[in-house]
Amino acid sequence: MNGSVASRAAQSVNETRLLDRHAQLASIGAIDPVGMNRQALTDADIEARRLVLSWAAERGYGTAIDDIGNMFIRRPGRDESAMPIVTGSHIDSQPAGGPFDGAFGVLAACEVLEALEDAGIVTERPVEVAVWTNEEGSRFQPTTMGSAVFAGQLPLVEALSATDTHGISVGDALERLFRELPIPDGRELRAPFAAYLEAHIEQGPLLESAGIPIGVVTAIQGLRWFTVRVDGETGHAGTTPRSRRRDALVAAVTMVGRLSQLMDDPGDVVRFTVGRFEVEPNSPNTIPGSVLFTIDLRHPDANVLAALGDQVDGICQANAFGCRVSVVETMNAAPTVLDAGISQVIRAAATDVGLEHMDIASGATHDAKYVALTCPAGMIFIPCRGGVSHTVLEFASGEHMVAGTRVLAATTAELALG
Amino acid sequence: MNGSVASRAAQSVNETRLLDRHAQLASIGAIDPVGMNRQALTDADIEARRLVLSWAAERGYGTAIDDIGNMFIRRPGRDESAMPIVTGSHIDSQPAGGPFDGAFGVLAACEVLEALEDAGIVTERPVEVAVWTNEEGSRFQPTTMGSAVFAGQLPLVEALSATDTHGISVGDALERLFRELPIPDGRELRAPFAAYLEAHIEQGPLLESAGIPIGVVTAIQGLRWFTVRVDGETGHAGTTPRSRRRDALVAAVTMVGRLSQLMDDPGDVVRFTVGRFEVEPNSPNTIPGSVLFTIDLRHPDANVLAALGDQVDGICQANAFGCRVSVVETMNAAPTVLDAGISQVIRAAATDVGLEHMDIASGATHDAKYVALTCPAGMIFIPCRGGVSHTVLEFASGEHMVAGTRVLAATTAELALG
Repeated sequence: MNGSVASRAAQSVNETRLLDRHAQLASIGAIDPVGMNRQALTDADIEARRLVLSWAAERGYGTAIDDIGNMFIRRPGRDESAMPIVTGSHIDSQPAGGPFDGAFGVLAACEVLEALEDAGIVTERPVEVAVWTNEEGSRFQPTTMGSAVFAGQLPLVEALSATDTHGISVGDALERLFRELPIPDGRELRAPFAAYLEAHIEQGPLLESAGIPIGVVTAIQGLRWFTVRVDGETGHAGTTPRSRRRDALVAAVTMVGRLSQLMDDPGDVVRFTVGRFEVEPNSPNTIPGSVLFTIDLRHPDANVLAALGDQVDGICQANAFGCRVSVVETMNAAPTVLDAGISQVIRAAATDVGLEHMDIASGATHDAKYVALTCPAGMIFIPCRGGVSHTVLEFASGEHMVAGTRVLAATTAELALG
Repeated sequence: MNGSVASRAAQSVNETRLLDRHAQLASIGAIDPVGMNRQALTDADIEARRLVLSWAAERGYGTAIDDIGNMFIRRPGRDESAMPIVTGSHIDSQPAGGPFDGAFGVLAACEVLEALEDAGIVTERPVEVAVWTNEEGSRFQPTTMGSAVFAGQLPLVEALSATDTHGISVGDALERLFRELPIPDGRELRAPFAAYLEAHIEQGPLLESAGIPIGVVTAIQGLRWFTVRVDGETGHAGTTPRSRRRDALVAAVTMVGRLSQLMDDPGDVVRFTVGRFEVEPNSPNTIPGSVLFTIDLRHPDANVLAALGDQVDGICQANAFGCRVSVVETMNAAPTVLDAGISQVIRAAATDVGLEHMDIASGATHDAKYVALTCPAGMIFIPCRGGVSHTVLEFASGEHMVAGTRVLAATTAELALG
């Protein structure tokens, strides 16, 4: 750790500027009485982008945009041919979301450039802010669209043809964005980064529970989805003895109970959810003939995720109670392990700034997931109240926003010094 | 057991006549290709009643009808002032039912009168066939309407005002019945019986499984219904640790699992069914915020039913997993214990006729349930294929129909001799 320079960057984070800008950005797309509706490529998103670009213009930073609308703001380095250190997130929101999810990471990134400037730090590498298009996937599917296209994981033409409920395509919406935004330069997709950093609210309760302001994200969880169908036999609730029943509900609840026990890890890292559970014919005095239920299983460790997920079918089949059981895996997304070296720099930066930190796995997905396929990547989490997000009640304190931004500034400085 | 006379009655049961009449009755309201739609007080029901009355007329038996349309056919006894032995059932059907449910008991009862006649047996008491109105409750609710009104458990005016989906009332439909049927005599409600016997298909699988042709029904099960509501908290499936969850589904499946264990009696007498189970918001990646499920619990022994049912609330509350749990009992119908003395006469009759028998509790309800409130009552079950009823696939063999009718004849003779 180049302690003195990184510390100076962290100390130059300006709390007033950061929170003022947060308030400005939060006013665009605000819904009454609280909350945020700033879906991707809407008027509100365009206005928010214009605001962010105005901050860049004040400092004379270069700005660029790529074909999917991802925006980049560049503070030059001593070696302009070197790959940049990039930090950012997104400023689109859920239709009834809050002003912290994504926006905090963009605000923190902008503040890092200002802090470096104010501290008079000349970095070896350029430092860039990235504003990714359509992370939320509310108006246009899929989620993390901009970063997926950037990373070559989603074909541009496919993304451009996605339409909203009014039939407007991403391509149409982007044309309007390009027309209205004063961004001079184009930027090729998959431009190489030296490293990527993303600051974000946790969207879960772990940091708040632990009373720790900084989460060092070591991984973004992997996810496996299953649909289990149990086919038994309907019958009269009054006349059919247990020994003659093939009760799909008794089988299904037993499966869920056994699976729930299997997933009960001492460290409370496994995420196991049966969210959908449907019974036919669903009548009080008829033995259920069939049940369909879903399993959402997540873990940051690919081996654990594989080991647990691979037991689902066996446990269901072993508790069939005479029913036919079919288990179909509908999704299997591997965990993203973030760069260990960068995580170590983040830990050192937090220690340097004097902030407690803990390692954490991200339960939700982020743009960093795709960017991590192209360069070493790290994420910094700050607590959010009650662990809630994707709701108008989403809240993060100014103190935590400043803390996260200071750690991001120190980490960026350290990585950019060369 | 007055062996010789009872045996003669049983031996006089005429298989050809019984099965011919079954075929005649089954043709009225038959649906294509199989099954029966002969709902209460429809044209088909009236035609079927007319057929039964025509059999009575051939023998010159007296016929009577009461204000709810229950019909009685009387073979006189030596002492016409003595209370009759009555046997019967119903001839209305489910909209997609079979020709055995109810109809078998009426056919068997009619055959008992013929057999007594053919054997030249003069009974001390009169013997009557009862044909109860609207047992099924498909067209007009509630079920077992005629016997409930007969037994004073349902006010006549209330029954008369029940309407079908076309707005036709029971009163209107009965007026038409009275006009069209050639029945001379009125009969008061709650006319006293010395005893009541009902033969019926089991509508469950126990006799078929055991390979035993005669069930001696000792009780009609009691029934308790509960609705359990579990209120937890929705949350993000990816970010919320188990320790922070109040997952209504995990709580509910644990409750059902524990209850299912509690209800698992070695004798397989308890009937425990969770037929309805509904989850909100029922989305794969959202922790369920609430679950509502129903419990249908039945047992022939009032004490066991009370003991088991009274544990439902405690078991649900003990497995709340932090959720709010409300348990509401929506029905509590006591078991009907049939007369032990009559059951003993039925057992002796079966033995006398040379038929294997076993004691059995009725899972479904029957007219005997209400009639048993007014006089000693017994029921005789015969097997039905696969244990199914209330479906067009309902089937009972001629052999079993004859067997049940012979036992009914012997029992009736024994009781009517005085």
